[in-house]
Amino acid sequence: MARWQPDARSRLQEAALTLYGERGYDETTVAEIAERAGLTKRTFFRYFADKREVLFWGSELLEQQMVAAIEAAPASASTVSLLQAALDAAAVRFEEVREYAGLRQRIIASSPELQERELIKGASLAAGMAQALRARGLGETAAALAARTGTTVMHVAFEQWIGDPQRRSFAQIARDALAQLREITSA
Amino acid sequence: MARWQPDARSRLQEAALTLYGERGYDETTVAEIAERAGLTKRTFFRYFADKREVLFWGSELLEQQMVAAIEAAPASASTVSLLQAALDAAAVRFEEVREYAGLRQRIIASSPELQERELIKGASLAAGMAQALRARGLGETAAALAARTGTTVMHVAFEQWIGDPQRRSFAQIARDALAQLREITSA
Repeated sequence: MARWQPDARSRLQEAALTLYGERGYDETTVAEIAERAGLTKRTFFRYFADKREVLFWGSELLEQQMVAAIEAAPASASTVSLLQAALDAAAVRFEEVREYAGLRQRIIASSPELQERELIKGASLAAGMAQALRARGLGETAAALAARTGTTVMHVAFEQWIGDPQRRSFAQIARDALAQLREITSA
Repeated sequence: MARWQPDARSRLQEAALTLYGERGYDETTVAEIAERAGLTKRTFFRYFADKREVLFWGSELLEQQMVAAIEAAPASASTVSLLQAALDAAAVRFEEVREYAGLRQRIIASSPELQERELIKGASLAAGMAQALRARGLGETAAALAARTGTTVMHVAFEQWIGDPQRRSFAQIARDALAQLREITSA
């Protein structure tokens, strides 16, 4: 087997998601994932710490890019438009993995351990966004409220997006959800 | 030792929180908690499934009372006033445990296991509130957005409340936080 594998990470992710979906997450081993991808266990561990991390790879990048979008917005941007910018950045990441997003969500819903991990990633994202908002001058309470509002819209829009019969873009669904939240809270 | 112990639950909770604060959560045993409370391990297990549950006892009641407040509001109530009613219900519960709320929060912050448990309880609360909001006729997306907005305000207000130098009531801090969230999202 060649030392260098073109796109080994994607092949491992695809193999893992397929096996988790077919057999269940708990029942799948790293050896089976590697075999399905036509790679070795050693290669698997070059890319992922364990079989759980296959499902959460990319969450640091998601947080970085949402934070970067908040940092890059014009000084005059309102808090809502900062959240919008962060959601637009999330949309780019999500559209890249659209094909597997629904399957990934079902796998996570099947395991309390994975659900806990997902909640922790969500809390980390809200904390990262709150920090970026404070760096732009928001007070602690305003930053915490706004960051959690951003992750609320992201999570609710994500659930809609993976089951959307019209296959609208995540960006569009998130825009609509943010508008709906604004309507609810203004009434 | 008498079979019936007046307020054994409170004594066990107080002993547990004190020991977790003094020695650390991981380092404290159920036997030590029971001893500190002047009770037996057997009595401890009549009230709590394990030492973790001492910290989360009451969270089901909190959820029930917040849900009941949403259900009991007049038919004409706006979504914001439903959230306000739920937060007022939470305030009653929180004020009852004010004395230990800050210590409990520090203990939870010290342990990843306890933080995970806290996140799960928060997700359960949001799901329970969303269900109550759907039962009042809100659509799925609106109910999910509103419920998570309610838990956002609750969590942010709680953090403020436990460290508030003026010792304002939770109800007041939550009202201010909800007003601030509305201001942020309307701008």
